[in-house]
Order: sequence, then C-alpha cells, then structure tokens
Amino acid sequence: MADQETTPRGTLIIIGGHEDRDPKGKRTILREFARRSKGGKVVLATVASHQPEGYFDEYEAAFADLESGELVELYVEERSQASDRDKLDVLDDAAGIFFSGGDQLRITSQIGDTRIEDKVRRLYERGGVIAGTSAGASVMSETMLVQGTSRETHRIGDLHMAPGMGLVRDVIIDQHFAERGRMGRLLGAVAHNPRVLGLGIDEDTAIVLEGDRFEVIGSGGVYVVDGSHVTYCNVAEARAECSLSMHDVRVHVLSSGDHFDLKARQPSHPR
Amino acid sequence: MADQETTPRGTLIIIGGHEDRDPKGKRTILREFARRSKGGKVVLATVASHQPEGYFDEYEAAFADLESGELVELYVEERSQASDRDKLDVLDDAAGIFFSGGDQLRITSQIGDTRIEDKVRRLYERGGVIAGTSAGASVMSETMLVQGTSRETHRIGDLHMAPGMGLVRDVIIDQHFAERGRMGRLLGAVAHNPRVLGLGIDEDTAIVLEGDRFEVIGSGGVYVVDGSHVTYCNVAEARAECSLSMHDVRVHVLSSGDHFDLKARQPSHPR
Repeated sequence: MADQETTPRGTLIIIGGHEDRDPKGKRTILREFARRSKGGKVVLATVASHQPEGYFDEYEAAFADLESGELVELYVEERSQASDRDKLDVLDDAAGIFFSGGDQLRITSQIGDTRIEDKVRRLYERGGVIAGTSAGASVMSETMLVQGTSRETHRIGDLHMAPGMGLVRDVIIDQHFAERGRMGRLLGAVAHNPRVLGLGIDEDTAIVLEGDRFEVIGSGGVYVVDGSHVTYCNVAEARAECSLSMHDVRVHVLSSGDHFDLKARQPSHPR
Repeated sequence: MADQETTPRGTLIIIGGHEDRDPKGKRTILREFARRSKGGKVVLATVASHQPEGYFDEYEAAFADLESGELVELYVEERSQASDRDKLDVLDDAAGIFFSGGDQLRITSQIGDTRIEDKVRRLYERGGVIAGTSAGASVMSETMLVQGTSRETHRIGDLHMAPGMGLVRDVIIDQHFAERGRMGRLLGAVAHNPRVLGLGIDEDTAIVLEGDRFEVIGSGGVYVVDGSHVTYCNVAEARAECSLSMHDVRVHVLSSGDHFDLKARQPSHPR
C-alpha cells in the first residue's frame, strides 16, 4: 500500500514568511496550525537554518497558549544524521510538522530522499498537518524556486530552480512576495513552463491546502499566476539578460477567506 | 479649432524613472527622444522638483552628443509664474518637452489648468514630443497615482489618486515599477475602476505612444494590468486595511520591441 500513489488526506499550510509569532498577537496562522494538529505532538523542523538556535524558544513561546500539544525540535546538521534512530523516532507519533525558514536547499540537500522525508510524506498521507514558512514554503512544491533577483523584471537566465519535496504538484511557490517585489521572478518561473501555476504568498499570509483546494488566511495577499493561456513568451528565444516578455497571463489576487481550486484553476469567494 | 477635441499627432515618451543618462552609456530612451525632436528646441521642465538645481546640467551633458537641438529649462516656482510671458515664450518654438522627476502633485498644482499646460497640450496636438520620467510619467494620465504603499499587497483605502494632465486617457501609470515592488498598488488602482488600464513601467524603460499604440524601449519591463474581465473584487465591500482581492485579471509583461494597442487592449510582438 505504501508504494502506491495515494491521495494525501492531510493538510498543507504554506506560509509566506514572517507569520505573526508575537505571544500577544493574533497569530492567525499558528493558531490554525495548532487547531488542525488537535493537541497532538508537533515537530518543529529547523533544518533549513544554518543556525537553528533560538527558533525553538520563539515558536514555543508563540504556541504556548494555542492549545497545541508537545513541541519538539528536529534538526539535521548533516545528511548522515537523517537516518539516525532518534531523529526518526521524533516523527513517529507527530500530528504535525512545521518547517521554519532559512535556505530551501538545506532542506532538500539534507533530507531529500531520506527516511525523514519519507516519514514527512507518510504523515501527510495519513492526515497530518505539514506547515512551512519562507524556505519551508518554497520546498513544498515539485520544482522549487531557489534564487532569482527580486525587485526586477525577470531577466532571461536569472532563475535558479531545483527539485523540491513535491508535496504539492504543478505549482511553484514564492514567499515574502509583495514585500520583496517578487512578481517579476514568479512570472519568470511560470514562463519556463505554464504547466506550473505560480503562487506568490505575502508575509503573515498562508494557504491552507486540502486535496486540490486551498483557502487563504492571514493579513496579506496571495497571487496566483496562471500561464495556461499565454500567447507569446520570449524565454526560449531571447538572449540572456533580456527582459521577460509574456502576453496574456491570468492573475488572481486573493485575500483572507478566498478559496482556490488548483485543478480547475479557479478562485471563489464564499458569501 | 483649438476648443475642438482633436486627435493628437504627437508622441508621448513615458519613462519609468532612472533612464540611462550616463554620457558614456547607451541612453536608448534619451536617444529616441532626441531623434523624435529632430534637432529642434527641447524644453526641460523641472517643475516636479522642489530643488531643480543640477537637473539641467545633468540632462545637458546626457543629450550633448545625441544631435538634439538647444536645451532650455522651464521651472515654475509658484503657480503665479505660470502665466509669465518669458515662461510661456520658452515653449513657443519647442519641438519637445521633457518632464523630469520629483513630485507629480507639484506639476499639476503649479501648471494644471494654466497657459503653460495649454501650450504643452497644443504642442502634443500639433506633432511635438512630450516625455516624462518618474513623476513626469505619472502625470501623463487622466487620473494619476500620487501615493500608495510599495512592497505590499494593496490595502483597501491606501491609495491617493488625483487628476493628472490627461494627455493619455483610460490608463493609470506607475513607475520605478518592478524595482519598487509596485504590482500591489497598480492592481489596487485598477480595482477601483477597470475602465483604466494599468501601466507599470520599470526604470530605464519607456513606452513610446503614438495615437492608440505604443512600443516598449529600454532595458526593463512594462506591465499591463487589464481588469476588464475581473469577476470579483472587494474594494467596495471590504473594510479599510483589508487586503485586496481581485479575480481574473489579465496581465501582460512587455519588453523592448513589444507593441501594444490601447484601444484593442492587445499586445503584439513583431517578428
């Protein structure tokens, strides 16, 4: 059974970074994560960070009164540790995993194709909650954005992508979106292959994905870049450093309460 | 004749700011302006600036070897000067006017509805070249963007618009576009009334508009935000400070050589 492609029964909470973690704040996103992990054990995976010190204390304080269960940290200093019994055991009875920020390449290079990743995937398949913020958000997709200039229209050749964890297919995710002026690079990513839908998530904003549908929560916006009807694009022809040209892109700007169907590529706003 | 609505025979060069002005640089945009003013007298209107000192010297050096004609400065310290004979005379035999940057409200509050503005309009109508960069770009449209937070998804209520010079109808223009992460606020502006087409122009990039058609020149991108098929928008319902929601926006990313027809709202890429 485990080897069959199964439809995950869990929830992904994909966060654009800088979610409210102030113990006195609203903490809409962390609250949702706690609610969905139903008081069960939560693993804070700080593996994206080169210096994970401090993350645990900050999240522990943030979650303290949110009725979440025990919070334990999972850190993998080197890839060789990714099959350590004690690291694996941490995940056994977890209800949720929360990937904190840092460098998405650290997540994939340290735990990609390891037993830890396998356990994350199984947790998702059996109904757990997998959250990721910033680098932890980017890594959710099949192909992930690693690097690319912000605050600039995409220049041909200026994007670094890599295989992600692939918990969600056919999308590419960018974070700190409006705050870092990343529309240019997300459009550039989608231009490479409009099969992938671009999702740009603002800070303190998240999508809560179950099956093929997500809802937006938090204080900012989520941008959906749909290139399926693009009529012209210069990524394959133009010289490196040329500025992107792409005609007829469909864009949705979503905010808290909006829904989106990834299969139908269709937003909706419940009244 | 002068009171009749006539189709302008001139050219608008609308620049996203920071156009290359290095006397040793390519200066694509200034070169195009010089070419189109055919060696005739060029007026540098520095009226957008509170401190216009230095602008003239910089543009004079930039235009020096571009075969443009005499360069003269027009500055209006106070609105009362906008009917001074010597200020008006400057414009009489001009082939082109170049509005430099600063504050768009200074342009409209100092020369809006004055004889100077009338002369600018007539020059455009009879075939002259009107260029504007940064604030000088924003002011070209009928309703202009004055203020709004960059690097943030538009929050309901957070946009300051005002009547512009109206040399081009049914568009709203934003500048320093990708560089300052202004997609959020341009989408916000279009959300207010999709009758206006949003034009976001990057630095060192311009549109050259004749009649209803423009071509893109320069090193960056031009974003066209077309809200005519929007299916849902929350600007009228949501509370102030809520994040914008707008579904089904059509966006074009254009680069050097791309054309756009404002009436048909259609881009094209000549082969």
